[in-house]
Amino acid sequence: MNISKLFDKYDLIPAVAQDADTEQVLMLGFVNRLALEKTLETKTAHFWSRTRDKLWQKGETSGNVLNIVSIAVDCYENSLLYRVKPAGPTCHTGEVSCFFKEIYHG
Amino acid sequence: MNISKLFDKYDLIPAVAQDADTEQVLMLGFVNRLALEKTLETKTAHFWSRTRDKLWQKGETSGNVLNIVSIAVDCYENSLLYRVKPAGPTCHTGEVSCFFKEIYHG
Repeated sequence: MNISKLFDKYDLIPAVAQDADTEQVLMLGFVNRLALEKTLETKTAHFWSRTRDKLWQKGETSGNVLNIVSIAVDCYENSLLYRVKPAGPTCHTGEVSCFFKEIYHG
Repeated sequence: MNISKLFDKYDLIPAVAQDADTEQVLMLGFVNRLALEKTLETKTAHFWSRTRDKLWQKGETSGNVLNIVSIAVDCYENSLLYRVKPAGPTCHTGEVSCFFKEIYHG
């Protein structure tokens, strides 16, 4: 598919990172065309920071990069699923996943 | 935690739905305060449609609702993970997951 098309409607689309081995959802970030291009080029997850308004590589300071196994787009072509092999804990707190705070459990 | 606080910075935040049994990532949608309230109240996933600018319950027409098992918030409190038991295929195409189109595989 033509990747550019992904950003026709929204400049930024959400990308979920999921551990390809454990299936755990690790983090969610936003991606623009440049971030997706860098992800495909380097085979490590890149995102676009909305607060800093810049490209960032997950793990650029910690070394805990997310190595890309595969990338899927959803049926409406406005969100991405990065299947990854993480080099270490994904969360800056040291937790394996950024989704460690439950707000509801049935 | 105070759920209202979640929407202080952004009115809409992304929510990933993951099958609590198979661990498959099923879909991604956006959620505002009302959608999260309805999700908690009904224990079925609700989202806010950006294109129709209205609240929607996943499965409201198909019957393929997503029954909520748990909800987690990420470390920055600007995205959600819905762990769910789906009543049927999640995608409107009939696929189990909306992320069935791979754009890259290493």
